[in-house]
Amino acid sequence: MTFTIQNVLLAIDDGYTTSDVQVVDGKIVAVAPNLDVVGDIIDGTNKLLLPGFVNAHTHSSEMWQRGVISILPLELWLAELYDFAPIDTEKVYLSALGTAVETLLSGGTSVVDHLVLIPGQELETIASAVRAYQEVGIRAFIAPLLQDESLSAGLPAGDSSQSHEPFFRSTTATLAIIEEAIKQFHRPDEGVYILVAPTGIQLCTDALFAGCIELSDRYNLCRHSHLLETKAQAKLAQEKYGCSAVTHLKQIGYLGDRTSLAHCVWLNDADITILADTKSTVVHNPLSNLRLGSGIAPILKYRQAGVNVTFGCDGASSNDSQDLLEAIKIGAILHNVTDFDYRHWITPRQAVEMASLGGVKALNLADQLGSITVGKEADLVLYNLTNLSLMPRTDPIGLLVLGRPTNVVDSAWVKGKQIVANGQVTTINVDELRQELFNLSEWTTQRQSPTRTQLEHHYRHIMGLSS
Amino acid sequence: MTFTIQNVLLAIDDGYTTSDVQVVDGKIVAVAPNLDVVGDIIDGTNKLLLPGFVNAHTHSSEMWQRGVISILPLELWLAELYDFAPIDTEKVYLSALGTAVETLLSGGTSVVDHLVLIPGQELETIASAVRAYQEVGIRAFIAPLLQDESLSAGLPAGDSSQSHEPFFRSTTATLAIIEEAIKQFHRPDEGVYILVAPTGIQLCTDALFAGCIELSDRYNLCRHSHLLETKAQAKLAQEKYGCSAVTHLKQIGYLGDRTSLAHCVWLNDADITILADTKSTVVHNPLSNLRLGSGIAPILKYRQAGVNVTFGCDGASSNDSQDLLEAIKIGAILHNVTDFDYRHWITPRQAVEMASLGGVKALNLADQLGSITVGKEADLVLYNLTNLSLMPRTDPIGLLVLGRPTNVVDSAWVKGKQIVANGQVTTINVDELRQELFNLSEWTTQRQSPTRTQLEHHYRHIMGLSS
Repeated sequence: MTFTIQNVLLAIDDGYTTSDVQVVDGKIVAVAPNLDVVGDIIDGTNKLLLPGFVNAHTHSSEMWQRGVISILPLELWLAELYDFAPIDTEKVYLSALGTAVETLLSGGTSVVDHLVLIPGQELETIASAVRAYQEVGIRAFIAPLLQDESLSAGLPAGDSSQSHEPFFRSTTATLAIIEEAIKQFHRPDEGVYILVAPTGIQLCTDALFAGCIELSDRYNLCRHSHLLETKAQAKLAQEKYGCSAVTHLKQIGYLGDRTSLAHCVWLNDADITILADTKSTVVHNPLSNLRLGSGIAPILKYRQAGVNVTFGCDGASSNDSQDLLEAIKIGAILHNVTDFDYRHWITPRQAVEMASLGGVKALNLADQLGSITVGKEADLVLYNLTNLSLMPRTDPIGLLVLGRPTNVVDSAWVKGKQIVANGQVTTINVDELRQELFNLSEWTTQRQSPTRTQLEHHYRHIMGLSS
Repeated sequence: MTFTIQNVLLAIDDGYTTSDVQVVDGKIVAVAPNLDVVGDIIDGTNKLLLPGFVNAHTHSSEMWQRGVISILPLELWLAELYDFAPIDTEKVYLSALGTAVETLLSGGTSVVDHLVLIPGQELETIASAVRAYQEVGIRAFIAPLLQDESLSAGLPAGDSSQSHEPFFRSTTATLAIIEEAIKQFHRPDEGVYILVAPTGIQLCTDALFAGCIELSDRYNLCRHSHLLETKAQAKLAQEKYGCSAVTHLKQIGYLGDRTSLAHCVWLNDADITILADTKSTVVHNPLSNLRLGSGIAPILKYRQAGVNVTFGCDGASSNDSQDLLEAIKIGAILHNVTDFDYRHWITPRQAVEMASLGGVKALNLADQLGSITVGKEADLVLYNLTNLSLMPRTDPIGLLVLGRPTNVVDSAWVKGKQIVANGQVTTINVDELRQELFNLSEWTTQRQSPTRTQLEHHYRHIMGLSS
C-alpha cells in the first residue's frame, strides 16, 4: 500500500513530464521529481501512469454467451440472451472474474456490473460476484439488474392489443432483496458498492423506480439504469408515459448527480438539457450500440451541453469483449462522422479524462478518485510504452487511445494495493480461470431461441420492417 | 511447404467440422478426416483454420506517425502527415516490417501497401518495402502511391480562384518510374506484385490515370486507388469533371474486375450500380473513416448491389493500428446503425469471407487463394481457440470477429511456407524490430504543421464551417 514510482511519464497540460509518485497507505501523497523513496520502488522508465479507468456499464454473466448471439437488434438479441442465460452461481463467479481481469488488463480499476440475477437465487448471485471482485481486488460497483415486468412488455404495442404475463416476482419482493443486498454487501471501505439499478423504463413500473429512489436516498447509494438504447424504447416511452422517457424519469425524481444512464442513444435536445440540468451521467457503450444496431449516441452534443460522459464495455455478448481501451477508442472516434466541425471531436486526452474522472463522477467519487492528485486514493495504472503495439514512439496517450494496444498494462493498483504486476494479475490464477471457462463451455453454433421466435413477428411489425 | 494439419476445426455451411488438411508443395491437396500424414504434423486440436485475410489497403510508412497526428479531417490530416513524412528508406523498410508483422498476427497473409514514395528516391522506397515483405514472407501487393498535382489542388476551390504549384515531378517521369518498378519488382511467383495506384481523382490528372491503365493492361497488373473518401472530394469531382468521380473513372476506363477502390464513402446509388456493373472492389477502411470523420461507407448497399467488398486497416496514422481483426469487427458491426432491418446486417461468417475471398477477388487471385479448397495455394491461418480472450467457448468465428482477440494467431503459412509458429513470426527477429522502432523514434506531442496552417482557413470556408 506504500510505494514510490520513479521516473514515470505523467500527462500535464498538453504535454508530459517525468516525475516520481509516492503512495502511502493507499493514498497519493506526493507527485514531484526526485522524491525520497518510501516503500517499494517501482521503475517508471518508459512507462506512463494514468488514473484507472471505469468500466462504467457491463453485465458480467453475459460473458458465457459472447460470440454466439445472432446479429440482431436489442429486443430480439435479449430474447436469445434470456433463453440461454446461465443459472449457476459458479458461472456467475467465473464470469465476474473474467470481467475483472479483462477490465484490469485494459486499464480499468473499477467496474459497474449491472448484474443479471438468477431467479430465486438473487442474493447468491450477488454474493458470487462480490466474491469474485474481492478476490481480484478491482473496485466493484454491483448494480443488481431489476425489472418487474415481463420481457414482452419491453416492446411497444403499436396498433396491437398485447397482454403480458405478470413478472414472476413482485415489486415489493424485489425491493426487499435489494435492501438485503445493501445490508449484506455494500461496503465502500472494502471497495464494494451496491447501486440501485432498475433495468430501464421498458421493463420497470414507477413503483419499482420509486422504491429504488427511496433506498438510494436512505442508504446513500448511486443509481444506474439503461436509458433509451433503441428506437423501440423511445416509441414505448411515448406509449407508456405520453412523454419522453427522460422527462418521465425527471418527474419521478430518478435523475441526479449520482445517477448514471447507459446508452442514451435516442434523446432529443430537450432531453439533453434535462440530463445537463440534473447533472446525470451518460455511459457510452459504443460497441454494443453498433453490434445491436441501436444507433450512434449524440455524444458530442452531450459534451457541448455539459453532460458528464464516460465509457462502458457493456456485457460481453453485445460487444463481445471487455476491453476498455477498445471501447474508449471507438467511443472517441465514432462521433467524428456526426459533425463536420472537427473542433468538436474528442481528442485522446479528453477520452482519457472521460474514462477516468468522468467515470468516478458517475459514482459520486470524484473527490476521492479519477486523477493523479495528492490526497486522492491510488487507483492507478502503469502502461509499458515499449510494447510493439505502441511502436514507434510518438504521443503515448495518442497511441493508447487511437492504436490497438495489446498487453500494455504493466501494473495496476486499487487503493494502493497492487493487483497487476509485470502484465499479470497477481491476485488470482488467470490460467486456472481460463481452464475453468474452457471446461465449462463447448463450441456452439446455431441455437434456436423460442422467445425470439415468439417476439419476432411483432417486432418487425412495430418497427415497420417487411415480414 | 508440405505438412498435414490434424484434427482442426473448419467452417462448413453454418457449422464446423473437425478435419485434416494436407498441403504439398505449397498447395492444398486434401481436406478430409484421418488423412495419411505427409510432411510435418501440425496439431489442430482446439484450433480453427481459416484462409488468410487480406489487409487490402494500407500505407506502411504512416506507422512512423501513428498516435500523433491531430484529430482532423482527411484534408488537414494529410497536410500534417506530409509535413512530417519519413524521408529515409531504412525507416520505410522498418515500417513495412512492422506492418507485415501486425497484419500477420491478426490473421492477414497478404498486404496491399499503397506506398508513399520518398521524392527522388522512388525506386529505393519500393525496394525497401519489397525487401521487408520478402524477409517476412507475407504476400505483398505494392501499389506505389502516385500523384501529379500538388496537395492544395486536392481541395475544392469553391468560390475562390486558387492556383496551385505544379507537382515537382512530371506525369511522364512518374509513369517511367512505375514501369521501371514493374520490371524490377513485379514477381508474382515470388509473392511480390506491383499495382498501378494513382492516389485518387483529387491529386491526379487524367493523363496519369491513362498511363496507369496502359501499364496495367500491358503488364497484367491490378489497379488501386482511393475513391471519394470525403465530402470535399465529392465536391471537387463535381468541380473538376461536372459529374461524379465514379462516372468519370468509368468513362476513362479505370474501373474493372482488377480494380480496388479504397474508402468509397460518398457514392450515390448510380455510382454503386457502376461499381457493380464494372465488377470493381470496394476496400472498406472503417477505422480511418471514423478517425478522420470521413463518414460511414454504404457497405450494406454495396453488398445488396453485388459489389465485392473487403477490408483494409488503412495507414497506421489514420487508424492507428494494423490489426485486421479490429478492422473486420468494426467494419462488420458499424453498418448495423445504417439500416433497421437486421436481415441486411453482416454476420461474422460473411465478414470472414469478405476479408479472405473478397480480398483476393480484388487482386484477381480468387482462383488461386481465399478459401480452404483443394488445388488452391496454402495461404492459411491457424487460430488458437484456447486463449483467454476467446473464452468461454462458444462460436469460434463469432468470437474471432465480434470479440477482441489478443495473441490468437498460432500459425500462418503463405504458399505453404510457415512464417508464424506458436504465435511468433519465425522469419525475422520481432524483438529487434521493436527495439529499432524504439531507437529511431522519440516521445512527441504537439507538432506545428505549416501546411495545415496554410490550408485550414480555405478548408473551413469551403466546408461551410465557422472560422
